[in-house]
Amino acid sequence: MTNPLRVGLRQERVIAPQCLVIFGASGDLTHRKLVPALFELFLQRRLPSEFALLGCARRPWSDEEFRQKMAEAMTKTVNENRVAWDQFAAGMFYEPVDLQQPEDLVKLGHRLDSIDRLRATRSNRTFYLSVSPKFYGSGCRALADAGLLKDPQRSRVVIEKPFGRDYGSAQALNRIVQSCGQENQIFRIDHYLGKETVQNIMVLRFANTIFEPIWNRNYISSVQITAAETVGVEERAGYYETSGALRDMVQNHLTQMLAITAMETPGRFDPEAIRSEKAKVLQAARLADENEPWNCCIRGQYGPGGTQENPLAGYRQEPGVDPNSTTETYVAMKLFIDNWRWQGVPFYVRTGKRLPKRLSEVVLTFREAPVHLFDAAGGGPTANQLILRIQPDEGAEFRFEVKSPGSGMRSRPVEMEFSYDESFGEPSDEGYVRLLADAMLGDPTLFTRSDEVEAAWRLYTPLLELIEDSPWQLPIHPYESRTWGPAASDALMARDGLLWRRP
Amino acid sequence: MTNPLRVGLRQERVIAPQCLVIFGASGDLTHRKLVPALFELFLQRRLPSEFALLGCARRPWSDEEFRQKMAEAMTKTVNENRVAWDQFAAGMFYEPVDLQQPEDLVKLGHRLDSIDRLRATRSNRTFYLSVSPKFYGSGCRALADAGLLKDPQRSRVVIEKPFGRDYGSAQALNRIVQSCGQENQIFRIDHYLGKETVQNIMVLRFANTIFEPIWNRNYISSVQITAAETVGVEERAGYYETSGALRDMVQNHLTQMLAITAMETPGRFDPEAIRSEKAKVLQAARLADENEPWNCCIRGQYGPGGTQENPLAGYRQEPGVDPNSTTETYVAMKLFIDNWRWQGVPFYVRTGKRLPKRLSEVVLTFREAPVHLFDAAGGGPTANQLILRIQPDEGAEFRFEVKSPGSGMRSRPVEMEFSYDESFGEPSDEGYVRLLADAMLGDPTLFTRSDEVEAAWRLYTPLLELIEDSPWQLPIHPYESRTWGPAASDALMARDGLLWRRP
Repeated sequence: MTNPLRVGLRQERVIAPQCLVIFGASGDLTHRKLVPALFELFLQRRLPSEFALLGCARRPWSDEEFRQKMAEAMTKTVNENRVAWDQFAAGMFYEPVDLQQPEDLVKLGHRLDSIDRLRATRSNRTFYLSVSPKFYGSGCRALADAGLLKDPQRSRVVIEKPFGRDYGSAQALNRIVQSCGQENQIFRIDHYLGKETVQNIMVLRFANTIFEPIWNRNYISSVQITAAETVGVEERAGYYETSGALRDMVQNHLTQMLAITAMETPGRFDPEAIRSEKAKVLQAARLADENEPWNCCIRGQYGPGGTQENPLAGYRQEPGVDPNSTTETYVAMKLFIDNWRWQGVPFYVRTGKRLPKRLSEVVLTFREAPVHLFDAAGGGPTANQLILRIQPDEGAEFRFEVKSPGSGMRSRPVEMEFSYDESFGEPSDEGYVRLLADAMLGDPTLFTRSDEVEAAWRLYTPLLELIEDSPWQLPIHPYESRTWGPAASDALMARDGLLWRRP
Repeated sequence: MTNPLRVGLRQERVIAPQCLVIFGASGDLTHRKLVPALFELFLQRRLPSEFALLGCARRPWSDEEFRQKMAEAMTKTVNENRVAWDQFAAGMFYEPVDLQQPEDLVKLGHRLDSIDRLRATRSNRTFYLSVSPKFYGSGCRALADAGLLKDPQRSRVVIEKPFGRDYGSAQALNRIVQSCGQENQIFRIDHYLGKETVQNIMVLRFANTIFEPIWNRNYISSVQITAAETVGVEERAGYYETSGALRDMVQNHLTQMLAITAMETPGRFDPEAIRSEKAKVLQAARLADENEPWNCCIRGQYGPGGTQENPLAGYRQEPGVDPNSTTETYVAMKLFIDNWRWQGVPFYVRTGKRLPKRLSEVVLTFREAPVHLFDAAGGGPTANQLILRIQPDEGAEFRFEVKSPGSGMRSRPVEMEFSYDESFGEPSDEGYVRLLADAMLGDPTLFTRSDEVEAAWRLYTPLLELIEDSPWQLPIHPYESRTWGPAASDALMARDGLLWRRP
């Protein structure tokens, strides 16, 4: 039954001795996500004892100050695990580094050598670029020039999002980082890929035999991919004004969900096989109407809303936002994938801020029964749906028809569901634990390869160009805060006789 | 979306004015199942006000005695619904009738005419033969000879199980009953077809689009159909000694479950379309080894068992059972269906008394994933299973693999389930309510047609002949009471690398 060739061949997933270097160590991400994730790995005993964390930024902190700042930012966890924290913090160091200053890189090299001696980290290094996107290219270059990336087995670079801001800039950035090291040294992070439930889409599809036969245009009539947020722009106006929902969410997270949902079956589970299939399907994807993108894309921006007791400012009233801003906080669009599996099946993708519910999900709607043998409430049976709940309430849900009890043969829809929480307990954080571990393991499976990133940007190029060149053709539709986006988005679906799911 | 041609064409399911005549009205079934089911229909206001129930048997009861006896047998329900019962009982009558006496039939005719006048039942009659099987043929004949079946729109006969005791006797009985009326006047009852969950197999298959594409030999590796009882033979030894599990359960209930699970999609939901498909699939079914049936059939008989405080007698020690009886109380067998959909897929069928659990279910096991991309507990992923729970815990369950939380990409099995009880409340009784209503409605969909009955008997002919002619070739394996049957039955599965499901 099991394939003996495949059993026992898996590598043990043990993180090798190494130093993790975070550039931008004084930034938010470091104390909010990265250090907590590392400490979590430490608590799970998944970090080797030969491990060091080196924080780098321009501020002139000492090792002790760095430890202190991190401890302050995660007081609760630290207090609950005081002994462990002290042990972990003993491996934390800090070095003031400006990546633009070559002499700082020399100093960094020396410091890393001394850490290697102190912590037995064997010149094995993971560099994490948690810096402003404009320094991704020059940061990599600086590391390469300082000789810190020359051993492809012992050095790797993790790059945060966004990777480029359009097809051209992503290509240019890829050219630079690829000149600094090998592709498998580059870990472009997308924290959605760290989510259990996103990875589960692959397991669901490829470890079961009942889904794959019906996972195609013969049986699926449409796919909806949603990432809804309740929050507004918060303190990120400076960044968000230059980005918008399309760049901030669609090009990366939603497109990755789409790729994993739509990809072909890989021949084996290894980084290149998986990423090649994802790149392939993205290369086959296109806007439903590339020539007149306004027919297949709706942009929105939240206005004021909320309740009398708890009023919410509109996007243009948020601190740091241009009062005439045309940055979109909502996007809905329709895509097609021109391959044998998906041709003609619309993929509807939407994301927005200040929506009524925080929720990410993939909804596959199956074709209707060709013949209605039974009476059903409201005419015919409802179409089957498989709902992959990414967050929250992680799990899956299947809507189908059963016999309505009593006389006659009427059918009505019911749901079956699987909940991660009920089966396994609450899944852990937003993926940084998983992704940091994978980067340190040198496993790039859950990181986006250059061709994927470029294909994702190219997909949205007609929209980005339109927004740049003639934004009036893709107008911003205002929507009230805490509503499900502009009416134009519902109209996009209504034209195809469909509705957005409103869980 | 809905097919407008199909909407609004359904007939209203309203029971027409009529008299239900029960022959064998003094028997168990009448007060245990039939009258309670009728009263239930009355409480649901599904009986017309022009309704009468005429009990017939040889005992010289009066109308009042009959009402009294029935009320005594269902005291609790009657007391809870006193007013309704009195109203219902006003339409209950009794007539002493011996079906073998032609003059009794003349008397019956007069009585029915008088009831027609009294209750406005319009000469519309459903005759229910709840008599000894040996009187099914002569009973029908007597009704026909008395002219009581001559209007096919206004008279029908319900025949209880067993319908024949082998292929030859079933054919002979069919010839007789078909000479008495038209096929659609004959309602051969199988109370399993009255179960919501058995009917739901059809709804599940034909009102959803995700099951049908994978409901065949390409995706399903085996099917198990189980009807397990915890009780022993109880007071039915007299009948059971001449029957055994094969005739009592397999030929009818299990074979009907098999037919509904395996049938082709009917073109429409009408009695002839459904029953033709069931007959077709049964005609394509065969024992896995017709020439050497002992390779595909295991017979068992329960021995003593239970606990010290609560010891259970073995079958041969039960009152009324031959101490050397070779009647089987357990059967397990393997069948194949030689058609395009099922060729090569084993159907394992088992039933037994004194098993550890009361349970009827259909389990579809899907093929294993062709490639194991992920690690899984115990080697490969477990095969997907769809479990249709007929009783108790009516519902459905789906076993599939999801990502095991944490590092790595391991899969593990979980269950999704749908429960009738949770969704709709406890389903009603064992089907007599449904089937009595359908018979009175003249809807034969859930009754077995002559060709189905004959195909079911023919299927088991090699076994029945062997048991008759050389029983030592199909020996009786003893098994302890409250265990899952003889070891030989497990061996039958083990030869195919399988296990019986033990929920």
